[in-house]
Amino acid sequence: MKPLLLALGALCVATAGIAAEPEVAYPEGYRDWRHVKSMLIEEGHPLHAAFGGIHHIYANDTALEGYRNGRFADGAVIVFDLLEAKRSDAAVVEGARKVVGVMHKDSQRFAATGGWGFEGFAGGDRQRRAVAGDAATACFACHEPEREHDYVFSRARD
Amino acid sequence: MKPLLLALGALCVATAGIAAEPEVAYPEGYRDWRHVKSMLIEEGHPLHAAFGGIHHIYANDTALEGYRNGRFADGAVIVFDLLEAKRSDAAVVEGARKVVGVMHKDSQRFAATGGWGFEGFAGGDRQRRAVAGDAATACFACHEPEREHDYVFSRARD
Repeated sequence: MKPLLLALGALCVATAGIAAEPEVAYPEGYRDWRHVKSMLIEEGHPLHAAFGGIHHIYANDTALEGYRNGRFADGAVIVFDLLEAKRSDAAVVEGARKVVGVMHKDSQRFAATGGWGFEGFAGGDRQRRAVAGDAATACFACHEPEREHDYVFSRARD
Repeated sequence: MKPLLLALGALCVATAGIAAEPEVAYPEGYRDWRHVKSMLIEEGHPLHAAFGGIHHIYANDTALEGYRNGRFADGAVIVFDLLEAKRSDAAVVEGARKVVGVMHKDSQRFAATGGWGFEGFAGGDRQRRAVAGDAATACFACHEPEREHDYVFSRARD
């Protein structure tokens, strides 16, 4: 099991036997969506175990509108694309994909978690769901204080 | 004068009085183009003076095709979008825009520099041309060894 899965596993309670939550779809074609912003998380950061590396945020058109007006309509999808950060002398370059994180707004289906469905596709593999049925504790618990921004941490920039 | 302009200035010979080279247009709408890849350049890197910070590469559709087949057709435009990299504990976040660098393929107009026109818009300001008439020494001299990749350093990734 890769370190990322272990890290996510530490956040997740095993959900076997619990009624299935609605599934979040893999975000087809997200690499052609708008690149919103990026960030590097290094060793020593409190989120390093789960999110260490360089991540890029992508937004579909509906989500872009949400970044502009502060409220995300149903259908908004935000991708957190996490890659390894490889240090080489005084530079950091991108390595392998660690996870494709997804927030998908559907205020009915995901009413229990602020109207957002959360999922992480380990290694970018659409078959390897890292969050599965545990969005409430593995994801929403951290996003919840961002309610004034519709539970979204990232902000758009030019 | 900002450090970036000083750095570029150190590479540039004053071109007043020299016959004007064809101008490279500001890449309108490039933030909606495909995000190709990113990299962080820190203090101690040989290119830090000119290119320190986090940069993102964007490509228009013609350039994307070039990344795939290795030859860039006329009309291909690649943007090197350089932002300040602000360290905060064990994270690096994006700061102000330092320069919007542009490569624009036009094999006739820019025949003297491998078919590519080069420009840098300081601070992202379309009025502040940092390369102007000195693409040959300020840009192409470094890109020239990449002739096997049509003078482009970056490679596409998934």
